[in-house]
Amino acid sequence: MAVDCLTALQHRGTESSGLVGTVGQPTNHFNIVKGHGLVRDVYNEEIISNLKDSIAIVGHNRYSTAGMKGAINCVQPFVLYTARGNIAVAHNGELVNASRTREKIMRSGVGLSTDTDSELIGQFISKTIAQNLKCQNDKKELGNITQELAATMSAIELSYCLVVMTYDRIYAIRDPYGNRPLSIGCVYGAEKKEGDSPLAYVVASETCAFPTGTKFHCEVEAGELVEIKRSGIRSVWQMMAKAKSFCIFEYVYFARADSYFEGQQVHSVREECGRILAKESYVEADIVSTVPESAMAASLGYAQQSGITYEPVLYRNAYVGRSFIQPNAEMRQNAVTRKFGVLRANVVDKRIVLIDDSIVRGNTMRIIVKMLKDQGAKQVHLRIASPPLKHPCYMGINIASKDELIAAKLSEDEICTFLGADSVKYLTLEGLQRAVDAGNKSENKGHCVACLTGNYPVDISF
Amino acid sequence: MAVDCLTALQHRGTESSGLVGTVGQPTNHFNIVKGHGLVRDVYNEEIISNLKDSIAIVGHNRYSTAGMKGAINCVQPFVLYTARGNIAVAHNGELVNASRTREKIMRSGVGLSTDTDSELIGQFISKTIAQNLKCQNDKKELGNITQELAATMSAIELSYCLVVMTYDRIYAIRDPYGNRPLSIGCVYGAEKKEGDSPLAYVVASETCAFPTGTKFHCEVEAGELVEIKRSGIRSVWQMMAKAKSFCIFEYVYFARADSYFEGQQVHSVREECGRILAKESYVEADIVSTVPESAMAASLGYAQQSGITYEPVLYRNAYVGRSFIQPNAEMRQNAVTRKFGVLRANVVDKRIVLIDDSIVRGNTMRIIVKMLKDQGAKQVHLRIASPPLKHPCYMGINIASKDELIAAKLSEDEICTFLGADSVKYLTLEGLQRAVDAGNKSENKGHCVACLTGNYPVDISF
Amino acid sequence: MAVDCLTALQHRGTESSGLVGTVGQPTNHFNIVKGHGLVRDVYNEEIISNLKDSIAIVGHNRYSTAGMKGAINCVQPFVLYTARGNIAVAHNGELVNASRTREKIMRSGVGLSTDTDSELIGQFISKTIAQNLKCQNDKKELGNITQELAATMSAIELSYCLVVMTYDRIYAIRDPYGNRPLSIGCVYGAEKKEGDSPLAYVVASETCAFPTGTKFHCEVEAGELVEIKRSGIRSVWQMMAKAKSFCIFEYVYFARADSYFEGQQVHSVREECGRILAKESYVEADIVSTVPESAMAASLGYAQQSGITYEPVLYRNAYVGRSFIQPNAEMRQNAVTRKFGVLRANVVDKRIVLIDDSIVRGNTMRIIVKMLKDQGAKQVHLRIASPPLKHPCYMGINIASKDELIAAKLSEDEICTFLGADSVKYLTLEGLQRAVDAGNKSENKGHCVACLTGNYPVDISF
Amino acid sequence: MAVDCLTALQHRGTESSGLVGTVGQPTNHFNIVKGHGLVRDVYNEEIISNLKDSIAIVGHNRYSTAGMKGAINCVQPFVLYTARGNIAVAHNGELVNASRTREKIMRSGVGLSTDTDSELIGQFISKTIAQNLKCQNDKKELGNITQELAATMSAIELSYCLVVMTYDRIYAIRDPYGNRPLSIGCVYGAEKKEGDSPLAYVVASETCAFPTGTKFHCEVEAGELVEIKRSGIRSVWQMMAKAKSFCIFEYVYFARADSYFEGQQVHSVREECGRILAKESYVEADIVSTVPESAMAASLGYAQQSGITYEPVLYRNAYVGRSFIQPNAEMRQNAVTRKFGVLRANVVDKRIVLIDDSIVRGNTMRIIVKMLKDQGAKQVHLRIASPPLKHPCYMGINIASKDELIAAKLSEDEICTFLGADSVKYLTLEGLQRAVDAGNKSENKGHCVACLTGNYPVDISF
Repeated sequence: MAVDCLTALQHRGTESSGLVGTVGQPTNHFNIVKGHGLVRDVYNEEIISNLKDSIAIVGHNRYSTAGMKGAINCVQPFVLYTARGNIAVAHNGELVNASRTREKIMRSGVGLSTDTDSELIGQFISKTIAQNLKCQNDKKELGNITQELAATMSAIELSYCLVVMTYDRIYAIRDPYGNRPLSIGCVYGAEKKEGDSPLAYVVASETCAFPTGTKFHCEVEAGELVEIKRSGIRSVWQMMAKAKSFCIFEYVYFARADSYFEGQQVHSVREECGRILAKESYVEADIVSTVPESAMAASLGYAQQSGITYEPVLYRNAYVGRSFIQPNAEMRQNAVTRKFGVLRANVVDKRIVLIDDSIVRGNTMRIIVKMLKDQGAKQVHLRIASPPLKHPCYMGINIASKDELIAAKLSEDEICTFLGADSVKYLTLEGLQRAVDAGNKSENKGHCVACLTGNYPVDISF
Repeated sequence: MAVDCLTALQHRGTESSGLVGTVGQPTNHFNIVKGHGLVRDVYNEEIISNLKDSIAIVGHNRYSTAGMKGAINCVQPFVLYTARGNIAVAHNGELVNASRTREKIMRSGVGLSTDTDSELIGQFISKTIAQNLKCQNDKKELGNITQELAATMSAIELSYCLVVMTYDRIYAIRDPYGNRPLSIGCVYGAEKKEGDSPLAYVVASETCAFPTGTKFHCEVEAGELVEIKRSGIRSVWQMMAKAKSFCIFEYVYFARADSYFEGQQVHSVREECGRILAKESYVEADIVSTVPESAMAASLGYAQQSGITYEPVLYRNAYVGRSFIQPNAEMRQNAVTRKFGVLRANVVDKRIVLIDDSIVRGNTMRIIVKMLKDQGAKQVHLRIASPPLKHPCYMGINIASKDELIAAKLSEDEICTFLGADSVKYLTLEGLQRAVDAGNKSENKGHCVACLTGNYPVDISF
Repeated sequence: MAVDCLTALQHRGTESSGLVGTVGQPTNHFNIVKGHGLVRDVYNEEIISNLKDSIAIVGHNRYSTAGMKGAINCVQPFVLYTARGNIAVAHNGELVNASRTREKIMRSGVGLSTDTDSELIGQFISKTIAQNLKCQNDKKELGNITQELAATMSAIELSYCLVVMTYDRIYAIRDPYGNRPLSIGCVYGAEKKEGDSPLAYVVASETCAFPTGTKFHCEVEAGELVEIKRSGIRSVWQMMAKAKSFCIFEYVYFARADSYFEGQQVHSVREECGRILAKESYVEADIVSTVPESAMAASLGYAQQSGITYEPVLYRNAYVGRSFIQPNAEMRQNAVTRKFGVLRANVVDKRIVLIDDSIVRGNTMRIIVKMLKDQGAKQVHLRIASPPLKHPCYMGINIASKDELIAAKLSEDEICTFLGADSVKYLTLEGLQRAVDAGNKSENKGHCVACLTGNYPVDISF
Repeated sequence: MAVDCLTALQHRGTESSGLVGTVGQPTNHFNIVKGHGLVRDVYNEEIISNLKDSIAIVGHNRYSTAGMKGAINCVQPFVLYTARGNIAVAHNGELVNASRTREKIMRSGVGLSTDTDSELIGQFISKTIAQNLKCQNDKKELGNITQELAATMSAIELSYCLVVMTYDRIYAIRDPYGNRPLSIGCVYGAEKKEGDSPLAYVVASETCAFPTGTKFHCEVEAGELVEIKRSGIRSVWQMMAKAKSFCIFEYVYFARADSYFEGQQVHSVREECGRILAKESYVEADIVSTVPESAMAASLGYAQQSGITYEPVLYRNAYVGRSFIQPNAEMRQNAVTRKFGVLRANVVDKRIVLIDDSIVRGNTMRIIVKMLKDQGAKQVHLRIASPPLKHPCYMGINIASKDELIAAKLSEDEICTFLGADSVKYLTLEGLQRAVDAGNKSENKGHCVACLTGNYPVDISF
């Protein structure tokens, strides 16, 4: 089950993954499997069958946000022996104050063997455990580290969603800004009856990772600490909330279309972005189309609103990786040319409105516009279903630096020229916010739009 | 370049691939690289750079149509030392009379080391070379094996497309029924001027495999033998044509949407199938949708014709393989549940027309219908953009046996019950043929519809 | 059991190995496992347990005597589908007339997919099977290919030991010159009683490969064809014998010291060589020593005869490979310096008689003499327990060309200077022959000494 | 060069190895390569060439003395980021008080990610660095951690030899008991002249690991801390010495015969053991022999002293691993039967004195005695070149528990019966000590004989 979840989350990065499960119930032994590459290459049948009935956490598949790429001990989850038994830590997000915190922890006498945030957080927990041990004379219930996690949460700011495992329970934790998503589901058996209690709980960044038979339970609140034991689930601590700053880019690009955040499906938000975009920046054309597949929803929304027929213009070869997460520029370049085939019959002599969800460097789009024109397109009008991306993200989305962001350097007209398009229009920030809030059922609203405005939820100075 | 082609053709099967290139020009040495798994795992930079300026052929990536799966010497192309030098043989298709031909060749004294068609054909060529040598006293030009290939073509019936390489030329060959596709392209440099001769030729089953900068040259005709040398390309032999029997399933399902056959793009044919299907089997509904991605075109066609809005209902996880080509039933089952996420917002309380290109066993579709109903769909009407699949294919499409084909065992009503749908309708054979012939620019028309009618192009008795 | 034999024979080469076993008794299916590297890396528990109760043959581990190194289909045994069912062929030796035979078989219409002798022989058998089929109207017992093997033996000259398997029997074959060794053993259970029939038979190049509990049965005679079935063993054909030419180098260097040939243990022959060498070329010294480990026996013999104490002077690092069989010169060079540590306490101020079994290029010995002198040896006298190696071997021992043999180019004095030794003496040919014949119990005596004299058992002209 | 050393030390265990080198001089970046398996499988040419001119340390290849076998981050050297930069730690030995120290370090707030001693020591150093930083206001030279290492040495008792690397220097450290060996060599170029300074220094457990061209410099003294910089080498700290307790088993079995300790070559000590054994326990016999290869020296000593001829009786197959270090009992059992072939000609009707260096469980020896008797030996008299092994070692030699030691459970007569020998005699403790001290040139004598007497150098209570 843990492995199915990992597979479902591979759109978040395919570099490596890890899994830690308890073996037997009374024992404190952790079984660790880690590897590079696709999920199906890391876990085999034997590994999976060994995990039956155990508590297990799996590391989010990440592209390397920071740190020593390639070292296997950097693969999540990170396991530590502490003064109160083993803990395993999986982290989604990126600590904005990581270097200050690292310095602090090293100056307190702890050596770090990787430069991952998950080790850093694990060592923080470990230190707090030791401090509490001194005060408490070991009276606490064995696997209970609620207090230590609460102390850690207060110290590490943002962004983090954590899943922390001790030998008999799992903690699900979300930072006080709610920057990264975290949901909990209840797994039921095939013949579920009313009133049955769940067979298991599952915690994941996105609901799409829930295995078949899972019922959505809740989103972990910003600043909340939830404890899951065999005997049940309960919220054990709530930090004082900061201004909610849930990453708006999860809606725009990062999350899977079938995931739910704040009570609404990502796909619906994207369609709404497309509809608003059509209202804001209509252009006369023969067809609406998209760069498969992430902007599919937005382009269908645009088509509905504008009344222009949707037609695909590009075939996407599923056997070539996602260009955004290829490790270097050259590999991204090659990937584009191999990845798309033009559906010429839909292109020749057509005026095309081409929708994409965002433009980062513009290199991929430039090649695509050229491919379409080479194959006979009369006009190519770009419509981008999000505002210009102008500022780097320090909270987990790998947008490296301002220099590489085309919208940080060029005006809309210059971008149009660079891309070789006939026109380029972006969704407005207001439009995006309207789309995101249309179906938002959360009581605690508020999104991080730092990459669009430069207003970060906390002071960024380094 | 050869490797890019392989990557582009991975939708035809991902089990293994091989590549043979000449090393140096005067030498007769072949450089062979073979492996299992995705193209990007088999070939590295060093291998590719060694092939510069060489003649090379690559084996079609196949799922195991027949033979000893897993043995590396079964991986195409098959290389043989013959009495007139090395040859390498790559084969697409499946010899319907393979067992008789094998028996014949073994009785002639040749041992076979695999049970692939490509070895069998290679040994046939080898035998013919030896026979001709006796008659001709070695007077023929060294790498020229035209006569031997012509003799082989006459002997092995169908279906085959072959690419055969000697040390200084490549032959492209298509069986007299034209059952499998084979196209030739001319590769030009970046600054091509009118009248330039091509830098290279490329032969592939589908035009989508042509690298950037390739201009379509021709389809190899049914029964044609084309020779490509450094000095140019020419048609060197033409068998007397049989009734043209190009596999109609290439249009329906197998080929990539951006490939061209008979002068028309596959995507356009599929859209037309959808339009005709809408005329033949309209049903009142809220949305038209599809099982991503192969039936996307048909569902857009259906939507256009019917005026019902197209909306996606399933998210397809690109990191899980294509269910059709997983090696066994259990793996197919698992693959389905992991592969699709439901876009619930588009499903709840909706009457859905769900388009698919074909139904083989119905297992995948049954799971999908259940997923949609579980998520709140009011009605699910299946519309299949091809006629019922009732007969096995012995010519290269892996449709195992009549027992496994749902349409061979159950009536349309029974199928509907089995799948749990509200209605099920297939495209008629006439409808399919009309769609396929609408834009057909070939002078030699005619399609194999044996899997739909049981009328095979040749006598099948075994 | 088959795998244990392979492990025992790894001193004959560690490049690759293969194993073919029947699966089930009535079936004609062969189970094939092949791989590169050490035996323990190729076969796992699962593979081995699947072979229970089956007939199986394993390929001799070879360094590449000839052919396309690295191609997995070159790994023995070679399996072919023939007109009378599958055969598997394993070959030890080297066909002196391989290129003529290849040309002949290719001109008869057979393509060859490797350049191994085992494929060539397999195709020869395959051809003979087909010819006999025509004459005999299929009346022969199914797995019986005695006649075809007899015909093949007559055609392929030398050198070959073959193990050929059909679905229900194994043939053990030795060439009419008896050039390569081949022995048969009977395997008994733990509580063997007088009169019990054996549980199994085992065929191997060397008796050391026999598993525990095996009783030596016989050597296959020169030109003999032995058939082993579940029901028993019998000699089914005997070629007219040629002058016996058993490779004398098997005694000198190649075989394992605990193997038996011609009724005598290899170790005893080597000790006798040492004793005769001491009589022929005594020198005053403080200690007798050796280059570990193949000349250990000869040096103990020398010590006994001369009365000079044996003392080791070199430690051999078992984790570095045998230099003789490293694939290229540079790797051999590195291997030497890493392989030996000097036992300085036994070397300082000593006059050393250093025994080795043979000198090929002299490069290793030159480095060793220098190492000993650098560490303080007063004198180093080389005594070689075989005559000078002056001629290449075309029958299976990888002695590449005359140019590389130091004794073919330099006189004894020049060799002494090149090696930096104080004296160099070789065993005489008469001495070697006396040593080899002292305990020889074979009725058919005679050894190939072509590498020492240039007199080959057959005409070598190519 | 570092890699050559590792290869030379593979007799100390073949499970895994690691290497850390600085990349560029001013930078603080460490290049880490780790892997399982033989040295030649872990390091390739590219890795090695990248290390040119760098400071590098390599982890001792160990069998798993303690800890989580298999986890790659357990492979030495262990690298940590500390408050004063990166350090890498390689450890030979075993901390007797590891569990107390672990508890202490975890209670101080440090989480441990492995259960290796090297991580534990690394965290100890890291903690001391942080403490000193607070006092010293960062005035110390950057890579200098002398004080921290001195503090660590005082805290961790025994046994340890450490090599610790910072970005610009390497420290070589030996515990105050001198329990494990550690030597330093100077590497000179090919044309060394008098007065040249060395090109490099090399630190290794055994002198046999020194590459060609290395001159022995010194043994690190018990309790000594030596610093090596590009500018030279110097002893920077000396702990107050404890009673010297150098492991006597390094002489008996563990070290390579060509290594030097305390000014004498291991091989010479072993020969002397054999001579004294012959004096103590002479028996009339036809030959003296040994179980290859570690007791070769002792058996030659026995032969010299007794006047009985040395003759080998077993052939050892170099392609089967050392039985002592196979990970489990079953694999050891299989290894024995595959590893040795009997030289029958030397065994039949002979009275054999069989020398071995030690008996642990007796299982191997029991099988060997049976093999010899089965092949016709008249008598087999065992003579063991060390006293009975009765107590476990907690300081780095993997002798698991008293229950498994045959001499801890059975009397000499019972052992004789169990092994099936005609007599069994051990070397006396006095005999062993005489042999070890005969050529001992160290000024600080004293050996740990805890495994023979139960008197441990420190209190062992757990």
